[in-house]
Amino acid sequence: MSKLVESIKKAVELVELKDGMTISFHHHMRNGDFVLNMVMEAIAELGIKDLTVNASSVFDVHEPIIGHIKNGVVTGIECNYMGAKVGKAICEGIMEKPVVFRTHGGRPSDMEKGTSVIDVAFIAAPTADDMGNCTGKVGKSACGSMGYAFADAMNAKKVVVITDNLVQYPLNDFSISEVYVDYVVAVDQIGDPKGIVSGTTKITRDPVGLKMASYAAKVIDASGLLKDGFSFQTGAGGATLATAKYVQDMMLERGIKGSYGMGGITKYMVEMLNNGCFQALLDVQCFDLDAVESIRSNPRHMEVSATHYAGVSGKSAGVDNLDVVLLGATQVDVDFNVNVHTDSNGYIMGGSGGHSDTAAGSKLAIIIAPLSRARLPLVVDRCLCTTTPGSTIDVVVTQRGIAVNTKYGKNKELKEKLIAAKLPVCEIEDLKAMAEELCGVPKAVKLTDKVVANILYRDGTLLDTIKAVK
Amino acid sequence: MSKLVESIKKAVELVELKDGMTISFHHHMRNGDFVLNMVMEAIAELGIKDLTVNASSVFDVHEPIIGHIKNGVVTGIECNYMGAKVGKAICEGIMEKPVVFRTHGGRPSDMEKGTSVIDVAFIAAPTADDMGNCTGKVGKSACGSMGYAFADAMNAKKVVVITDNLVQYPLNDFSISEVYVDYVVAVDQIGDPKGIVSGTTKITRDPVGLKMASYAAKVIDASGLLKDGFSFQTGAGGATLATAKYVQDMMLERGIKGSYGMGGITKYMVEMLNNGCFQALLDVQCFDLDAVESIRSNPRHMEVSATHYAGVSGKSAGVDNLDVVLLGATQVDVDFNVNVHTDSNGYIMGGSGGHSDTAAGSKLAIIIAPLSRARLPLVVDRCLCTTTPGSTIDVVVTQRGIAVNTKYGKNKELKEKLIAAKLPVCEIEDLKAMAEELCGVPKAVKLTDKVVANILYRDGTLLDTIKAVK
Repeated sequence: MSKLVESIKKAVELVELKDGMTISFHHHMRNGDFVLNMVMEAIAELGIKDLTVNASSVFDVHEPIIGHIKNGVVTGIECNYMGAKVGKAICEGIMEKPVVFRTHGGRPSDMEKGTSVIDVAFIAAPTADDMGNCTGKVGKSACGSMGYAFADAMNAKKVVVITDNLVQYPLNDFSISEVYVDYVVAVDQIGDPKGIVSGTTKITRDPVGLKMASYAAKVIDASGLLKDGFSFQTGAGGATLATAKYVQDMMLERGIKGSYGMGGITKYMVEMLNNGCFQALLDVQCFDLDAVESIRSNPRHMEVSATHYAGVSGKSAGVDNLDVVLLGATQVDVDFNVNVHTDSNGYIMGGSGGHSDTAAGSKLAIIIAPLSRARLPLVVDRCLCTTTPGSTIDVVVTQRGIAVNTKYGKNKELKEKLIAAKLPVCEIEDLKAMAEELCGVPKAVKLTDKVVANILYRDGTLLDTIKAVK
Repeated sequence: MSKLVESIKKAVELVELKDGMTISFHHHMRNGDFVLNMVMEAIAELGIKDLTVNASSVFDVHEPIIGHIKNGVVTGIECNYMGAKVGKAICEGIMEKPVVFRTHGGRPSDMEKGTSVIDVAFIAAPTADDMGNCTGKVGKSACGSMGYAFADAMNAKKVVVITDNLVQYPLNDFSISEVYVDYVVAVDQIGDPKGIVSGTTKITRDPVGLKMASYAAKVIDASGLLKDGFSFQTGAGGATLATAKYVQDMMLERGIKGSYGMGGITKYMVEMLNNGCFQALLDVQCFDLDAVESIRSNPRHMEVSATHYAGVSGKSAGVDNLDVVLLGATQVDVDFNVNVHTDSNGYIMGGSGGHSDTAAGSKLAIIIAPLSRARLPLVVDRCLCTTTPGSTIDVVVTQRGIAVNTKYGKNKELKEKLIAAKLPVCEIEDLKAMAEELCGVPKAVKLTDKVVANILYRDGTLLDTIKAVK
């Protein structure tokens, strides 16, 4: 018995993909992914139309999807993150149906609850056997964790594994089991592993970034959470990575034994694991090749599914025990709502990812961002859209001041602690004033009435919408 | 956040167990298991009645369940295997409702299809953290694989993990994830690891057994399946283990590189893995402590779920690619149907386990059994009950002759190969005659009309019934 078929086109025929269906993809190859484009090309050649593409993230490399929207192959997109190239086209109104944005935890949970139905999942697998057992840990296109793909594999009606490293059955140390897989296709190349390292994944050298990082580290210290059992998530931005470095220094100096680091994992988190700051990493995706090497070789660096990472459909998730998360923002408003979906001009260039999941789950959710970017202020009266509700955000750290969110009846004690630590605590309105002093009050962005995206919160409810730019 | 509660009784209250519900257990602690008895005692003390117990296997250690049946706490049992002590009581008619027997593959698949609903699963976990991540690989009561427990964890409405080795969150190298677990209870001891080694798990020294083993090995050799890529399952009986030894010798002598060994795993299969006869072991349960040590330390020795091992609800299972399986029998009839549920007197003392799953999936299913036991013949006109349909059995090997099953339009070529190999090939009727010559024709077993057990085939259909003994 073998599930190997000779081409993607053949697999698409065998799964009986029809007009109007929903197909899914995961994004562990990030901006190096070839699979989404290859599959869409095969589908377009077969003349199938009116598809919804549910991809955990859409990167700039997926720009060809714009063509598929224009010719009617794709009429719907659902994702947790969308890069600026496709985002701009969406904001110009090229698609009739609004994009559905979810969170990294909400996406698998909506599949598990049955509110998001996937007809066919296409799994980019760096290594697989001919029955569909597969892993991201080894192979020439190794991406490490395949955490986001678990829900697709487990919930889609049909599953096609696409690999560029077909090995003899049974694959050792599989991540996704053959029990979920219908067909396997071997191709020359599923992606460019260099593309995995996309976005900023180096510690900033910019003095503004270092200032913010220093403040953020002091906030964590003053919070009282930095003690044995400490758990931590940080992103891949330059200032957040610098914060992680400062946090590591404090942990090593004081001999603090943390419990776990989580999230998209970078080499900086791997270093913390190896230096004994954590007993484990919970890895839903690898942000760089050092993380890929670590998850392959260190059993304390564990792959977790997106549900295990941040879902709401399971009995618990990693985010539920998280102490501190460091998050970015393009806009924060005076109610502490955060926007990471659009830039300040209203164009989509991001998405929640795990932003609102970790903010909701963690004890201390810190936004770290410069007071202004390109002469546009960080803090505004009202975000162009809300990615993460203000009620789940605790502190906003900028290079000029730190606002503690006491607007929802919490964090009064935290505010006192930060003041006692002589940190530059101020009100969110003060940050807004400082930013406007730097940049002036920005002109209102002109939007049309056309809704181009619906933002679903992690529980599946509608949180906000994004409108087309005029 | 923590899911730890102070006692089993408290967990039973928190999951709101009610009269009439179904609870489940897995059997990796085998005849050393304490958990089923502890839980039933707590439930009995709470005065809950009319429960159905779905345990992947019921061993002699679970004899106290007889008391719970008599006092109305337990009114239904579902399992894949039942030891002689409880089996005898069932055959004496102590329970109103018939026992439901499934197979190791059918049990998880019936859960996944929704035809077997579990209200509360109790998972005996040799190591767990307070959120429910758990594993059988480490801990003082380490049992190795927890393969049968996956379906319970993933499909039960509520899940309680019971451990005697609670570790700091997050547990490294977990098998079952916290996403499935509601509560965790820490107890002194979940079982006696010595009890894992139950039943025969040593190579036979008996000349009859060695004769059968030698024939079985020659059948495998003559079949043409013993070549690179060979896959193999064997049980833990003395003669089957001797066969495995002979097969290993041939593989090493000829430099044959097999693909995988599967099933309940013994030290003999581990030895074959370590000697390069297999590239991997797919382990759904460990039969001895050498297997436990191997699954802990050798990544090529892989834990698989029961669905992955033998299910019919997944897209494929390990059994689907199996070349050869060696199976036992208490009775074989002239249509090659096999009974491993009852002894020749009609008393339950076993069950399918993976018997009918592997027979159905494998290319060559070999029954290996002595022509008679305790003056009762192996081959009979009609089995007291059918565990495994004759259509899925290929060869019956005894110490006096080998019957090839050509009754279902298959195996003609195989029969010629065995004759060419000068093996003592005969008809199944010849084996019956030989057995009767040794033992005489046995008296008919006297059964009542009362059905005490229904045997479900792996697809969930009714295969046969077992009636109370007079």
